[in-house]
Amino acid sequence: MQTVGKTESIADALKARREQLAELVDFPVILWSGTSIPRNFAANKYLFRASSHFLYFAGLPLENAAIRLEAGRLELFMDEPAPDSALWHGEPPSRQAIAERIGADHAYPMAYLKSRTDGAGTIPVQDAATRSLQSHFLNRMLSPSTNLSGVDRKLAEAIVSLRLTHDAAALAEIRRAIAISAEAHRAGMAATRNAKTEAQVRAAIEGVMIAHNATPAYSSIVTVHGEVLHNDQYHHGIQPGDLLLVDAGAETESGWASDITRTWAAAGQFSATQRAIYNVVLAAHDTCIAAMRPGVEYRDIHLLGAKVIAEGLVDLGILKGQPQDLVDRDAHALFFPHGIGHLLGLDVHDMEDLGDLAGYAPGRVRSDRFGLNYLRLDRPLQPGMVVTIEPGFYQIPAILNDSERRAKYHDAVNWERLSDFSDVRGIRLEDDVLVTETGTEVLTATLPIEIEAIERLS
Amino acid sequence: MQTVGKTESIADALKARREQLAELVDFPVILWSGTSIPRNFAANKYLFRASSHFLYFAGLPLENAAIRLEAGRLELFMDEPAPDSALWHGEPPSRQAIAERIGADHAYPMAYLKSRTDGAGTIPVQDAATRSLQSHFLNRMLSPSTNLSGVDRKLAEAIVSLRLTHDAAALAEIRRAIAISAEAHRAGMAATRNAKTEAQVRAAIEGVMIAHNATPAYSSIVTVHGEVLHNDQYHHGIQPGDLLLVDAGAETESGWASDITRTWAAAGQFSATQRAIYNVVLAAHDTCIAAMRPGVEYRDIHLLGAKVIAEGLVDLGILKGQPQDLVDRDAHALFFPHGIGHLLGLDVHDMEDLGDLAGYAPGRVRSDRFGLNYLRLDRPLQPGMVVTIEPGFYQIPAILNDSERRAKYHDAVNWERLSDFSDVRGIRLEDDVLVTETGTEVLTATLPIEIEAIERLS
Repeated sequence: MQTVGKTESIADALKARREQLAELVDFPVILWSGTSIPRNFAANKYLFRASSHFLYFAGLPLENAAIRLEAGRLELFMDEPAPDSALWHGEPPSRQAIAERIGADHAYPMAYLKSRTDGAGTIPVQDAATRSLQSHFLNRMLSPSTNLSGVDRKLAEAIVSLRLTHDAAALAEIRRAIAISAEAHRAGMAATRNAKTEAQVRAAIEGVMIAHNATPAYSSIVTVHGEVLHNDQYHHGIQPGDLLLVDAGAETESGWASDITRTWAAAGQFSATQRAIYNVVLAAHDTCIAAMRPGVEYRDIHLLGAKVIAEGLVDLGILKGQPQDLVDRDAHALFFPHGIGHLLGLDVHDMEDLGDLAGYAPGRVRSDRFGLNYLRLDRPLQPGMVVTIEPGFYQIPAILNDSERRAKYHDAVNWERLSDFSDVRGIRLEDDVLVTETGTEVLTATLPIEIEAIERLS
Repeated sequence: MQTVGKTESIADALKARREQLAELVDFPVILWSGTSIPRNFAANKYLFRASSHFLYFAGLPLENAAIRLEAGRLELFMDEPAPDSALWHGEPPSRQAIAERIGADHAYPMAYLKSRTDGAGTIPVQDAATRSLQSHFLNRMLSPSTNLSGVDRKLAEAIVSLRLTHDAAALAEIRRAIAISAEAHRAGMAATRNAKTEAQVRAAIEGVMIAHNATPAYSSIVTVHGEVLHNDQYHHGIQPGDLLLVDAGAETESGWASDITRTWAAAGQFSATQRAIYNVVLAAHDTCIAAMRPGVEYRDIHLLGAKVIAEGLVDLGILKGQPQDLVDRDAHALFFPHGIGHLLGLDVHDMEDLGDLAGYAPGRVRSDRFGLNYLRLDRPLQPGMVVTIEPGFYQIPAILNDSERRAKYHDAVNWERLSDFSDVRGIRLEDDVLVTETGTEVLTATLPIEIEAIERLS
């Protein structure tokens, strides 16, 4: 495969992952990579993304492949390319060459897998065609990946316990993704001064990813309407007084993600009101990261961030009351309605294909509290975890104009004071943070976050 | 929808298309748009692409929608967004607003469609989830879109007869896609001088598309190994003596495609051998376009291009014999093994989801001749058709090192002379050509193709 430049150590890392899995499950494991999806006709496909679980143990984004893991051994199943494939797509590596690359003990045509599936567990992949194949090969129905049972559930739990913390090979990939993203954000900041539209800034950002043969790990958010949390449109013009919220992260060719948000002023300089709110969000960001270390509950980090935001908004006269009371009443969530962050790894919301199995410790479930419902991670921190820390402040009409909420929080918000901050529609600041033995390492620290540095870059 | 900027005339164009369809079929027609596909987990999706047939009659890239057409009337079926959608994705337009935009006579929730499907024809969309829905709603099995029968086949034939030639609204979109692509190619040429890798040139090209809120209509080809016909890898470094083959076309937000190929010298100046072959390919390109007019068989244009290439290669001493004899023996296909082009419209290979129903006139089937098998279009030209003209020259190891072919064509090729041209791995030149009442209009003419102009731009 010319698609990825790997060194010997990747095969070693893959072997170590297989051996760790073998300690956790006593049944064979078969993981499919998936197939590429037609876009508007069969020959015009979406860019293939292999299943993350496959990538974790196989390392290469092979299409239409499967691996069988048992007692630390690896068998690769894939068919050789069609005879005329070389004409259209160039001379591909042989199955045997790929097998050697990933350290497989044996390599076989896909059809041979049919006789090797007894008692095996699997994780259903995202594409329907391959899910049918999984079901056919295993000769049983598959539950949705968010609600597994039997051996598949046991396998999912084992994989979660491995993927929750990252080995050196994984961290190297995440760092590479982050380096590309940091360069991309810098390019976006530099391009903003002369950009007339969000789309032009997005072009600068994603252009850097493309130049590194990376892809966006998720739909980039590049918007002057940061209050739309998952805005994937880029149609607005940029006005001098606007803030630009950019949530964009690269994914490496072997599938490892990064996830960075910065917010900058279209004209380079923040207004006094924008600066004030920015520094509230930044204080939450800094306070959360300073409090992180192994054993600390991520949920408490979330609530700490909420409290710092509430404090800051009280200081600015936007919220009224005691910060802790406001958080207890979820009043902070009027302006910070999402979770403080999530796991990061092969998926930008790592292992979210398994529902909350990775994000929530056994026995825990999502709260129905307005201020906690969107929390994607509720576990004690462990060394080797990579999580995002992404506090924000938003003026979301769907929330702030909701009559029920306005009634409930009538005593908590100074609406007149809030109207002074109408040039702050949305600010979010997001870093990727590795939990270490003693505290944290901010992996995204090479990209500035202090307001003065942002103003210099944009 | 803020995603597309449409004028009143689009609704008029859509109405005219519906009325034309009503003249061709006497049964109701239901077209689904499709749904977005999960990439690595449910919330992280591939960028949605609506079904081209839906786009042709509905104009907007709506997700999870269907339209019902009967006697020129349009009913829209789609559900209102989920209540918390405004929080994450902003305030979406209502069903009623969308209905007015596309000139629908009525708009209903999706569930109501179930009672309106009697006797309806449809075209199966690309995504499996929506295909299941289609089958469920219509209460019958669906054949693959490449092999339809019954009312679906009749519908496909009617749609082909409409989409084969383009109305003014369609041409305006295609011209817009082409304008973006031409700017993208110019950016690619300009970026090449300082680029170290194919990926960096691709970034310049696709950056222009992103800046215009367009997407690549297909996986861009940006390669120093032009002999790999559908190369979608970008990992090679660029060396001074290399040719860079770039086949890249933008798609507008409402789905209309463009498709342009240029080949330029990495160092700006072509070598004498590169120049010689380039001009053979250009002669084929020019001769083909000059011969096009209504009534002419596209297959004959292909064979004409093959003959000009054979003539040029005979002149250069690479092929031996009479050009017409060489084409009759498919000897040209050693170096030009693909078709001269294809239909262009909402799909880059327009309507290829229907197999050869659009590309091949009724009663015609693909030839098994080496030199004709890959011809995607075999119809007489009609005014309003847009086709690509894309001759090429390639030294493809899988063909040229094939012992059977070397034996068959041992008297046709001067292998020693060929070795003088080792710095020409692949050249392709592709324009998008509108067939007019009297001849052609080269829609891509704003992007230079003469070697001197290309040298100035790169």
